[in-house]
Amino acid sequence: MTYRLLYLNIRARGEPIRWVLRALEVEFEEERIDMFSEWGAKKQDFKWGQTPVLEVDGEQLGQTTVICRYLGEKHNMAVEDPWIASRLQEAAEYLHDVSTLAAFAFYFRIKNDEEQKEFFMGRVRERAAVVVKNLENLVTDEAGWLLSPKMTWVDVFTAAYLDQYVDMIDGLLEEAPKLQEILGRVRSLPAIQEWIEARPPLHEFETNEGL
Amino acid sequence: MTYRLLYLNIRARGEPIRWVLRALEVEFEEERIDMFSEWGAKKQDFKWGQTPVLEVDGEQLGQTTVICRYLGEKHNMAVEDPWIASRLQEAAEYLHDVSTLAAFAFYFRIKNDEEQKEFFMGRVRERAAVVVKNLENLVTDEAGWLLSPKMTWVDVFTAAYLDQYVDMIDGLLEEAPKLQEILGRVRSLPAIQEWIEARPPLHEFETNEGL
Repeated sequence: MTYRLLYLNIRARGEPIRWVLRALEVEFEEERIDMFSEWGAKKQDFKWGQTPVLEVDGEQLGQTTVICRYLGEKHNMAVEDPWIASRLQEAAEYLHDVSTLAAFAFYFRIKNDEEQKEFFMGRVRERAAVVVKNLENLVTDEAGWLLSPKMTWVDVFTAAYLDQYVDMIDGLLEEAPKLQEILGRVRSLPAIQEWIEARPPLHEFETNEGL
Repeated sequence: MTYRLLYLNIRARGEPIRWVLRALEVEFEEERIDMFSEWGAKKQDFKWGQTPVLEVDGEQLGQTTVICRYLGEKHNMAVEDPWIASRLQEAAEYLHDVSTLAAFAFYFRIKNDEEQKEFFMGRVRERAAVVVKNLENLVTDEAGWLLSPKMTWVDVFTAAYLDQYVDMIDGLLEEAPKLQEILGRVRSLPAIQEWIEARPPLHEFETNEGL
């Protein structure tokens, strides 16, 4: 099984996949595409016209939540019960939806459209607060993971998004001690700690300046 | 097992769930919430602050794609192979993403913000064209369904969204004869045909006027 991740040179929707692949300790290659200078020409090579894409033995699979669930189930970092699996994916989708709102905020910022940037950042803050509160309530087991006695892909996925949003939204995890704990534990996994130290700084498209 | 669907009184992201429940011929109740006069007060009763929600034996599950996949797998209207299941969910997610763009187009229309409405309708048309082309290519079996010799929840889900978008986007299925066929077949299922005849007309929020 060979894995190759294709994504822009930003964190955003690619970072959860990078973290899940590392947490699984599977080998993978990555192609980083500069969103300003390269993506326009590369876009046509992507069947669905979007990234991230994970190539699995040469076949393309897109959509961050789908890729992460596929990897988690393939490599036994998932729950088996279908109802719990659905509730975990529900949570992952709500968190992932915040990234759509954030992407519009970034987009309108580079277009210098202050009004629309504000509109979407308002939506980001509103939705992130709801999602964090609910995720915190999903840590029901004393082991400290989301709806599970062991770490699943959803914990890693959640940590990879929270790692971005804690710097974007003031006080995001102030009332979420269990999520702080998950974020800390996932960041401390050796392969992820190594990545956090090695990864490029934030791309200018996704800095938190003026949000 | 009792099912209760809670959604606004529009089609949008609720309609795929209504169609899947009917295609499965399972009993369910529905509560329709008026998005202008009722939703503001009801919102706080929803854990994640959003609809649609399916109550399964009284427990809430949100997110259209997650609900439909759960129902499809529970009631044997799904493929078993994990890779094919992932590719089908990938397709469902790309189609579902169009509804986010359409929701913003509707929103900016009622705000009389012509420029933003146009921006989001442009995105709707661009993405819908890509998604339709790819879905058409996923009808690989002579049985005429998406990546499967039998109808799955993804066919029903796809038909329920296309049923909305064919009226919104001129010529959407012109070069997609296989999707036209799927749409026709799903619309002809007795329980769905009955619903199409009985359902309320489009809510003013989601008409196609001036899009």
